Amino acid sequence: VRLVVTPGMGIGPEVTARALSEVSHEVAFTLMGAATELQPALDEAGVPWTTASSACGCTGVCVVDTSSSDEPAPVAAIRLGARAVMDGEADALVTGPIHKARLRQQGFPFMGHTDMLGELCAARPVMAFTGGRLRVALVTTHLPLEAVSGAITPERVAHTVRTAHDALVDDLGITAPKLMLCGLNPHAGEGGELGDTEQRVLQPVADMLRAEGLGLTGPICAETAFMSAARGEVDMVVAMYHDQGLVPLKVVDFGRSVNWTLGLPIIRTSVDHGTADSLVGTGRADSSSMTSAIQLAMDIVRRRAGL
Amino acid sequence: VRLVVTPGMGIGPEVTARALSEVSHEVAFTLMGAATELQPALDEAGVPWTTASSACGCTGVCVVDTSSSDEPAPVAAIRLGARAVMDGEADALVTGPIHKARLRQQGFPFMGHTDMLGELCAARPVMAFTGGRLRVALVTTHLPLEAVSGAITPERVAHTVRTAHDALVDDLGITAPKLMLCGLNPHAGEGGELGDTEQRVLQPVADMLRAEGLGLTGPICAETAFMSAARGEVDMVVAMYHDQGLVPLKVVDFGRSVNWTLGLPIIRTSVDHGTADSLVGTGRADSSSMTSAIQLAMDIVRRRAGL
Repeated sequence: VRLVVTPGMGIGPEVTARALSEVSHEVAFTLMGAATELQPALDEAGVPWTTASSACGCTGVCVVDTSSSDEPAPVAAIRLGARAVMDGEADALVTGPIHKARLRQQGFPFMGHTDMLGELCAARPVMAFTGGRLRVALVTTHLPLEAVSGAITPERVAHTVRTAHDALVDDLGITAPKLMLCGLNPHAGEGGELGDTEQRVLQPVADMLRAEGLGLTGPICAETAFMSAARGEVDMVVAMYHDQGLVPLKVVDFGRSVNWTLGLPIIRTSVDHGTADSLVGTGRADSSSMTSAIQLAMDIVRRRAGL
Repeated sequence: VRLVVTPGMGIGPEVTARALSEVSHEVAFTLMGAATELQPALDEAGVPWTTASSACGCTGVCVVDTSSSDEPAPVAAIRLGARAVMDGEADALVTGPIHKARLRQQGFPFMGHTDMLGELCAARPVMAFTGGRLRVALVTTHLPLEAVSGAITPERVAHTVRTAHDALVDDLGITAPKLMLCGLNPHAGEGGELGDTEQRVLQPVADMLRAEGLGLTGPICAETAFMSAARGEVDMVVAMYHDQGLVPLKVVDFGRSVNWTLGLPIIRTSVDHGTADSLVGTGRADSSSMTSAIQLAMDIVRRRAGL
């Protein structure tokens, strides 16, 4: 297995180095970013490394320096890493955190990794998360709350559900995935008394998807969906918006959940935390999300290769 | 301690009877509702009962039949029960589930118990929930999602936070409660890039409340607030809307959480589940939310009485 890791910014380099000291070294890891940040972090964690000019297929850890690019080094790393996976030089991309607001001040034109990768891969990604007990896919992601209702279209819902279904089958090997669709409104609209999106949009599209043979339940109220999922009755919950999906996921799985991008031509996983700048160098940053992200990427690569 | 319990509809009578078979009988329980439903449920659970015409102060369980009222028996029970507590004939009101849609077809003009009790008590209630590890108060409750942003006013936020603070002090005996205010938008608006309600409304009102001496943190993103709360670092999370608060609560506390109405002149707790009509009579309805609701009401009564 050959992974490209872009450790990113803030605590990214140190959690990556710590994660690499824990995971199997029967893998070729290519780290892309500013060598002046990555190499000291690897040394600190006691991880041996070499340097390379492009993604390396050799077992162990090599560092590709992206700091001489026109772009900020963490952005150049994402671009180069995605390209390496698309070109077949590596099997999957694992990303650390970036400080989006700071990058946007330097001209970064994306909301984050996910939409940047969508553009680089000419695909329409679906943002999903997987933790210890819960998996969730989001129909909408980084929108102000008041824009959410208007963004729930039959087409977006269908794309999210179908993409989630395919990823569960192809990447996790679940043959008949059970998906559960959350309502948008409290109590899934309570029969129309608390909003009509469920009756007008979600119910018809869910019926259509069921007619296609998908194992989809709902729309049902989000509490019920997540309680079922936490009991292990559901393979993935499809949530309508960011907080509906991520608050229960994080409260159940704490730091262990992984941001998993579905619907790309490449395999991509990521930490689900930010740069946590105040923790840099304190030794208190938790590396378990990076460890989980690397582990999930390895698992998917092996499954797709039939290993 | 003298409690009025309105078992309500659906599984309400049976979970109430089962809860009463578990909790201390050094309490006077007055059950109000349709005697033809309550008495068989009590018999089934092996709970001895007597009848009465009004709230009874004697230790044990008595039943007040409300089925000869002009209103549906479960609604008359709430009205009579609240009145009994306001008049000092009982110490607290504990309510079971009602089927709101069915009652509304019979002319019930409220969204649910909470607004009915607000009107009966001429007060402005705050809906809160307490579970094993989490407590949450809601700034808005049963609104379609698209109406939420417009309903987040400084005045509503301040009322919710102050009411929550006072309840934690008076009812739970927490001398300096730690409250955490969620943002409305994902990532609490991410510095204004995902909505401006945090900067325009929440930050100023939070600063004002802190200047009053309240132990309030935020606005911060909801994931962070609930993760802190699940680690025991927060006494109550103040959420902006229904699913933001209730999904994490239910997924952590499952069936054990209690609906707790703050800001009324009476003590009121409730189950946090519905009538679950399909479970009636199957023996599979879980009585733990009713048991917890009764227990919380007893605890608050005792604390206020200095027992």
